Amino acid sequence: MKVTVEENHNQPWTREEFEKKLRDKEKFYHINHEFHILMNSGKLDKKAIQGWVANRFYYQSAIPVKDASIMSNCWDRDVRRSWVQRILDHDGYGDDEGGIEAWLLLGEAVGLTRKELLSHEHLLPGVKFAIDAYVNFARQQPWEIAASSSLTEMFAPKIHQKRLDNWPEFYPWIDKEGYTYFRKRLKEARRDVEHGLDITLDYYKTREQQERMLNVLQFKLDILWTMLDCMWMAYIEDKPPYHNC
Amino acid sequence: MKVTVEENHNQPWTREEFEKKLRDKEKFYHINHEFHILMNSGKLDKKAIQGWVANRFYYQSAIPVKDASIMSNCWDRDVRRSWVQRILDHDGYGDDEGGIEAWLLLGEAVGLTRKELLSHEHLLPGVKFAIDAYVNFARQQPWEIAASSSLTEMFAPKIHQKRLDNWPEFYPWIDKEGYTYFRKRLKEARRDVEHGLDITLDYYKTREQQERMLNVLQFKLDILWTMLDCMWMAYIEDKPPYHNC
Repeated sequence: MKVTVEENHNQPWTREEFEKKLRDKEKFYHINHEFHILMNSGKLDKKAIQGWVANRFYYQSAIPVKDASIMSNCWDRDVRRSWVQRILDHDGYGDDEGGIEAWLLLGEAVGLTRKELLSHEHLLPGVKFAIDAYVNFARQQPWEIAASSSLTEMFAPKIHQKRLDNWPEFYPWIDKEGYTYFRKRLKEARRDVEHGLDITLDYYKTREQQERMLNVLQFKLDILWTMLDCMWMAYIEDKPPYHNC
Repeated sequence: MKVTVEENHNQPWTREEFEKKLRDKEKFYHINHEFHILMNSGKLDKKAIQGWVANRFYYQSAIPVKDASIMSNCWDRDVRRSWVQRILDHDGYGDDEGGIEAWLLLGEAVGLTRKELLSHEHLLPGVKFAIDAYVNFARQQPWEIAASSSLTEMFAPKIHQKRLDNWPEFYPWIDKEGYTYFRKRLKEARRDVEHGLDITLDYYKTREQQERMLNVLQFKLDILWTMLDCMWMAYIEDKPPYHNC
């Protein structure tokens, strides 16, 4: 009996089982962070909302750099032809102004200026370190592994939908024009997930590799969680870096 | 008159002025972080002390990797002959077991096992991101700039001395054998500062470069501060990542 159990333990998960293991990671998604819970129940003040928008702007700015890093390690033209869509979505292309511009509009809607956002003057060091870890991971890992780290997108549509549902009521002072980004990402994230999931379910073959992939996804979850920890310290505890110096 | 003022503003600082500007950054050193203030006044419980020692062990482990990264960009044999001393100090060489081993002894003195430390199982994600930012900076920047980022060592002897002075009284449960690391670094840090300071004062020539160097030092101060922010969240606020999931 013991041998059978161990054999099962070493057998790779089927595509369906593997996908379920990935989706089970949702419980660690930053939607469950206390900062996010306060935000989505209307309990943040204007300063905290602005802080979140300004810090998260560095994440938006980093996404195309991260995606270019993945492509810089990828010699498969077909993959690049699909993956480049993410860069076009964020940076904009032709008539589409893209996601970074949409986030700038969100910034203006919460009362920040473009200059404040573009200078990253409100960016907390710990938020920067977490996001830079994501970019450096994409630079240093095989493209398939870096690509699979983006799969927290599986959990994104729900978070965007909740913001669209709740914010207009909770934060009437935010200009409705600001919500374009969330609407835009609702459909893009769903399409990106399909592509990222295909790459991931194909690439990790053995059980050991599949288990390693769960750690890659955890790494990305750690980044999102840590970003909110830093914002918690700065905007909820009111202890931003050097506050007592 | 206005022209004269602007000329002065653009003139490089003298070596003495530049060194003073660097030393003035001491006010942002993590000795002033509230976590450190609690630690050095005997107010941390065993779990928090253990958390600090375990998280800081990842920093110790990263130092030789950071120093090898600096050397990997440096084609100057004389510099490497000096800089390699830092690797020897941390990894040990011949009969000297080195700083990492000394930190393991500190870990055992506070009640952690070697296995716990070496596995980094207590390492908080945000602490890892901050330390990895330091290693990646050393990989990606010219060696002189990466070398100059280590100058927070200017402020280290005081912090080590305070620990040696206060901990035996405040934390009588810590085995005295554990304090070898702090004693060892007292003299090494002083010698390293001389070398790092020489490189820095020589390398940054224009006022603009000198001002940029202040930001490099600030980046390193941000790393040390952010590490303690993460430990504050985990061990003082009792909100480690996913605590509510």
